[in-house]
Amino acid sequence: MSGNPPKFKDLYSAGIQSVLPMLYVAWADRVLSPSEVKMLRGRMSELAFLTKEDVELLKSWSHPMYPPSRELFQQWQIVLRNAGATMDNLERKSLVEMGLEMAQKSSRQKDEKYWSAPETKAALEEIQTALGFAQDIEVPTLHTKESLECSDCRFDVSKMTALLDDDYADVRNRMRNLLKDPVFTYKTLRQKEDYRNQVLNWTTLLAQQGLGALSYPTEYGGADSMGEYAAVFEMLGYHDLSLTVKFGVQFGLWGGSVLWLGTKKHHDKYLKGIGDMSIPGCFAMTETGHGSNVRALETTAIYNESTGDFTIHTPHHGAGKEYIGNALHGKMATVFVQLIVKGENHGVHALVVPLRDDEGNLLEGITFEDCGYKLGLNGVDNGRLWFDQVRVPRENLLNKFGDVDAEGNYTSPIQKPSRRFFTMLGTLVGGRVCVPRAGLSAAKSGLTIAIKYALKRRQFGPKLSEPETLLLDYPSHQRRLLPRLAKAYALDFGLTYLNKRFANKTEADIQEIETLAAALKSYATWFTTDTLQECREACGGKGYLAENRFADLKADSDIFTTFEGDNTVLMQLVAKGLLSNFKKQFHDDGSMAMLRFIGGRFTTAISERNPLTKRNTDKAHLFSSEFQLNAFRYREHRLLYKVADRIRGKIKAGKPAYDAVMDCQSHMIALGNAFAERIILEQFVKAVEACEEAELKSTLKHLCDLFALAVIEEHKGWYLEDDYMDGSKTKAIRRMIDLLCKEVRMDAQGLVARVFY
Amino acid sequence: MSGNPPKFKDLYSAGIQSVLPMLYVAWADRVLSPSEVKMLRGRMSELAFLTKEDVELLKSWSHPMYPPSRELFQQWQIVLRNAGATMDNLERKSLVEMGLEMAQKSSRQKDEKYWSAPETKAALEEIQTALGFAQDIEVPTLHTKESLECSDCRFDVSKMTALLDDDYADVRNRMRNLLKDPVFTYKTLRQKEDYRNQVLNWTTLLAQQGLGALSYPTEYGGADSMGEYAAVFEMLGYHDLSLTVKFGVQFGLWGGSVLWLGTKKHHDKYLKGIGDMSIPGCFAMTETGHGSNVRALETTAIYNESTGDFTIHTPHHGAGKEYIGNALHGKMATVFVQLIVKGENHGVHALVVPLRDDEGNLLEGITFEDCGYKLGLNGVDNGRLWFDQVRVPRENLLNKFGDVDAEGNYTSPIQKPSRRFFTMLGTLVGGRVCVPRAGLSAAKSGLTIAIKYALKRRQFGPKLSEPETLLLDYPSHQRRLLPRLAKAYALDFGLTYLNKRFANKTEADIQEIETLAAALKSYATWFTTDTLQECREACGGKGYLAENRFADLKADSDIFTTFEGDNTVLMQLVAKGLLSNFKKQFHDDGSMAMLRFIGGRFTTAISERNPLTKRNTDKAHLFSSEFQLNAFRYREHRLLYKVADRIRGKIKAGKPAYDAVMDCQSHMIALGNAFAERIILEQFVKAVEACEEAELKSTLKHLCDLFALAVIEEHKGWYLEDDYMDGSKTKAIRRMIDLLCKEVRMDAQGLVARVFY
Repeated sequence: MSGNPPKFKDLYSAGIQSVLPMLYVAWADRVLSPSEVKMLRGRMSELAFLTKEDVELLKSWSHPMYPPSRELFQQWQIVLRNAGATMDNLERKSLVEMGLEMAQKSSRQKDEKYWSAPETKAALEEIQTALGFAQDIEVPTLHTKESLECSDCRFDVSKMTALLDDDYADVRNRMRNLLKDPVFTYKTLRQKEDYRNQVLNWTTLLAQQGLGALSYPTEYGGADSMGEYAAVFEMLGYHDLSLTVKFGVQFGLWGGSVLWLGTKKHHDKYLKGIGDMSIPGCFAMTETGHGSNVRALETTAIYNESTGDFTIHTPHHGAGKEYIGNALHGKMATVFVQLIVKGENHGVHALVVPLRDDEGNLLEGITFEDCGYKLGLNGVDNGRLWFDQVRVPRENLLNKFGDVDAEGNYTSPIQKPSRRFFTMLGTLVGGRVCVPRAGLSAAKSGLTIAIKYALKRRQFGPKLSEPETLLLDYPSHQRRLLPRLAKAYALDFGLTYLNKRFANKTEADIQEIETLAAALKSYATWFTTDTLQECREACGGKGYLAENRFADLKADSDIFTTFEGDNTVLMQLVAKGLLSNFKKQFHDDGSMAMLRFIGGRFTTAISERNPLTKRNTDKAHLFSSEFQLNAFRYREHRLLYKVADRIRGKIKAGKPAYDAVMDCQSHMIALGNAFAERIILEQFVKAVEACEEAELKSTLKHLCDLFALAVIEEHKGWYLEDDYMDGSKTKAIRRMIDLLCKEVRMDAQGLVARVFY
Repeated sequence: MSGNPPKFKDLYSAGIQSVLPMLYVAWADRVLSPSEVKMLRGRMSELAFLTKEDVELLKSWSHPMYPPSRELFQQWQIVLRNAGATMDNLERKSLVEMGLEMAQKSSRQKDEKYWSAPETKAALEEIQTALGFAQDIEVPTLHTKESLECSDCRFDVSKMTALLDDDYADVRNRMRNLLKDPVFTYKTLRQKEDYRNQVLNWTTLLAQQGLGALSYPTEYGGADSMGEYAAVFEMLGYHDLSLTVKFGVQFGLWGGSVLWLGTKKHHDKYLKGIGDMSIPGCFAMTETGHGSNVRALETTAIYNESTGDFTIHTPHHGAGKEYIGNALHGKMATVFVQLIVKGENHGVHALVVPLRDDEGNLLEGITFEDCGYKLGLNGVDNGRLWFDQVRVPRENLLNKFGDVDAEGNYTSPIQKPSRRFFTMLGTLVGGRVCVPRAGLSAAKSGLTIAIKYALKRRQFGPKLSEPETLLLDYPSHQRRLLPRLAKAYALDFGLTYLNKRFANKTEADIQEIETLAAALKSYATWFTTDTLQECREACGGKGYLAENRFADLKADSDIFTTFEGDNTVLMQLVAKGLLSNFKKQFHDDGSMAMLRFIGGRFTTAISERNPLTKRNTDKAHLFSSEFQLNAFRYREHRLLYKVADRIRGKIKAGKPAYDAVMDCQSHMIALGNAFAERIILEQFVKAVEACEEAELKSTLKHLCDLFALAVIEEHKGWYLEDDYMDGSKTKAIRRMIDLLCKEVRMDAQGLVARVFY
């Protein structure tokens, strides 16, 4: 006969089981003292319900010199965990009650009543008391003590949320509620057609809520609020990035190009329909041959004097419009072309070109090709477009910066073609303001998932008898996640600043804002890619399951470093902006500016390069925003000066300017980076200073210090090479970061709860 | 009437078109000289086929003080590119011939014969000669001059391939041919069911070729060759990583566990069927609650004395087997359990457990759940398994390291449970030898795609009139790709070394090999993740299209940093291995060893810390393997010494050992990293020294220098902090890296062609 298989409860006799919880806890908590052992051994012999074998076994397990082996202890643990799993209200039972219930359930014991006798309980409780256990002691490791380890954080989460929400709490709260609607339930659709339809429907729903038009003038259904539009974009970034991008293409790029490059006639004709999604459209700028170098794109619009219209034409296959979002659903497109009038090319301009009729059929001369599956964002219908001698009326020219009258006379408010080109592109910088915010949302989602997991997951531990260690209590795990958490907060303040500057832009500061947007877009999206990777790895195999969202977060946000301007190209643009500003200062003010700059530089240099400062490892010094800001500013200024000097030197030595600049590419990218970091730290420091709530201020200060010191540590090679800091100081900074990680770990749960969406 | 739309050929009159190619090249090549301008203007007035308007226009275009504007020049370019696109043998035409053909095709000119008249051609050729143009000058930028820029590399690609193929050229070539078979055509299947079936079929085909069994003894259809098996695994890494992983699960993990943990009875019963895929199976070790901490897993096997069999049981839901590959297709599994015999737990052991009957139905007591979609590797059927009192016969215990006789007596050749546990796990290190090789294959695929793209793609340029610059000629692009290319070569030599050590392992060096495998697995797979990200970004939007493979390469290899041991945990294991070795040296040899170690350390320290050496920026010094190896070894030794010292200090100060070690986690990870880098550099230096082919040696030396210096630069913060190098030296290293990038760029095409698959 095969018999009943043995179960855990059969591993030990009922008698053994009755005392097992006590024995386990006695060994788990501490080593048994000789007098306790003596007491135990004595009492056991007296207990009538223990067999002789029971007593022998128990004695072998309670010798102070021979604690139970790892294997034995693990076995007790498995037995107790199994028993506990079938008991109600385990947490309210005493060790004796648990043991008695186990004994009672044991199948070997015929006489169950024996175990419910009050004498049995009384005898066991005497031992319990003698061992010094309270009645309600918990059985360790039988369930996770989450409540104990994830202590409530030391600040008010709702106040932190309000602080980060800044001026846009209303629209953010509206989005938080809206996205909870079941219609927006996030689901992964593997077939691009299904996914695209879902995203199209969602976009239409958002349009119907008036959210797409927010940045348009009120007369076209908008609220004239770029800030609110950006906040909506950011909130969508917590939901589905395909939706975020489709939303941006329709309302930001297609609508934005009509708004900023067109004039009243275009606004009247299109803006309302764009805002309510009745005119889905595209932004057809990029060509296969030319992405970053927009000025060299090859599609042409030639003005026909005889008929008074334009012919749009793609000269060869490689000049087709590439990667155009909304290209499957779009009825119209803003198409960027070289504008040729009376045989003369006036450079890049944009026209509105109808793509499809009301039934969705492509119009004559237009060829469409699906880009197919992409690494991510498969809910966005990207496609390619070619134009074969397509005629559009003269009024379709978006004519704010260049117009053609009926007789074929070209006019423009900006004479110089290059200034005209850069002014036109400058009006479209809104995308670079929004993209980093959505990228940051994705990074925050990743940090939230990884930190919550690290507050729940345990692995390994000091002793088998203790709960395993929480991942977030490992210093290496803190180092992976917490400086990035601090950087996410830092970026929040940096991007809010950018958003405000953009919303209040004037013609005078638009160039500065473009530089700012290029720098923060690159910095934030590289941060997103890096953070999501680290968070995925920090969640191990769990992070690899599609249901835990890293698959989509990583894949969808991966292109953020490329679109709206390739990060590497943008950082060089930032450096060029800083360099031309630097040059202009000299030019405008003469040598005074040079002296002032050098003076400023040397003032920092002198105070910081003072051998004492260089080696100052005081906590108060390292945690002072003065030291931190000085270090960030010094790096930026020094890189700026060195790049300028290097380029000048090379040109002086006879190198063509193009080659001289190219030789300095890596330095220029470093400069763009340093500029972004300085801006972000300044905004974070300001926010800490402005905060009046003591607990909040203290939490923010820890985060700000952690951000500042972690960035300095990232660049410690540079600081040491430049002799700005001594090795003793960089080592002290490393220790401070470890300390700050421990501080931030205490608030980690609150820092990702409710704040981050 | 709407009329014919204007086309490019109508932009200019036939007369203008006849001279446009010449004019374009004249301006593109250089500035026109005053005498040339004078000649041009004179000749133009004389040409009978030019109208008065033509002459006026041409004069306005040939003023030496007013070169054509960017817009005008771009227009010429578009017109010429359009015309060129419709001409045969463009490259064999002279500028005059091109111009005449354009004029001829122009619709405005009724008299086409005019343009074929010999006088017309003669008059134009006179101008052509006067401008100094040869008959066969190329029209620049009309087509990409690929052949010129991608110069043939300076070494013999087939010799490089042979060098990297090492001892396994035959099996590698066999795989190269096999994977070209149409049946293996790579295709993306979005539905996991389809994809899994494809991978299952592929795995069966490979098994039928005898490739799965290669590492098994010859009597079971194998070749007793771990090296060949690893080479096959590596080659699959160039193809489909789901296939690679499924192959590894079936033949490496499932088959490997039977081979290494079982005895002859198991080999006889299972190995042949595993090798030919008639017994698909799983390796059920990881549990939801315990991944890295294998020793604490909770599934039990209890021996039933009465019936002579085992009961396998999952004590609670969280102890289910997690992420088990082949779990849908598997008929059997090696299940890792706590082995309990006569009420005593003997720790982790493994048993063969049947999962499904011949029809594929799950057997009683077994619950299966699909893991669902994952970030990648969706061709692998990962699932979860639970066992509810499942009975298996006694002989199913894989009993090489622990056995139970019919009476229920447990015996083991290894008495100490912890040694037994680590010995068992040690036999399974093969996975850690293979995984980094497949990871490296994926990284190489990415580098190949990105470098080929960078040798084709142009964007921006010094002048509008010249071809745009190739991406790989940008220093920043070289910096992104080429040090990583060098590291891929370096890793190749490092992993070949590991493979050989593993294939020839003995009991004496198995621990050293485990340390080596853990270090190189982590280092290589982190490299893979980092490299594929950089390569994707370096290909911009093109890299984001699924057809260009980064989507799959990135997603599939992402988990390599987690499976077969989480990299962070493994690197700490490496550090522990080095530390215990270090401790053992002192223990074994007494204080002499300490003196020797410190002596060795100080010898390096003295020679290198000599103020002259510290500042030595000579090229010969920086390119010497002596300097490079010293720097790598110094870093490893110094980190080892410092970690040991730090832990000792903390314990002395009263910290429990667990906490003391935990405080040093980040340093331990750095130590593991330094160990891996030292091993890799040593192997690379050896390979360069052993190479007898001059060109090959020189190419390899550039790559080795680039690897060594780029690694030193990565750690420059550490070297400066430690005062091992001076800022002047780290700056010189940066310049040398720039130089080496230019060297390697010359060979880049060859370095990724044919070598890398």
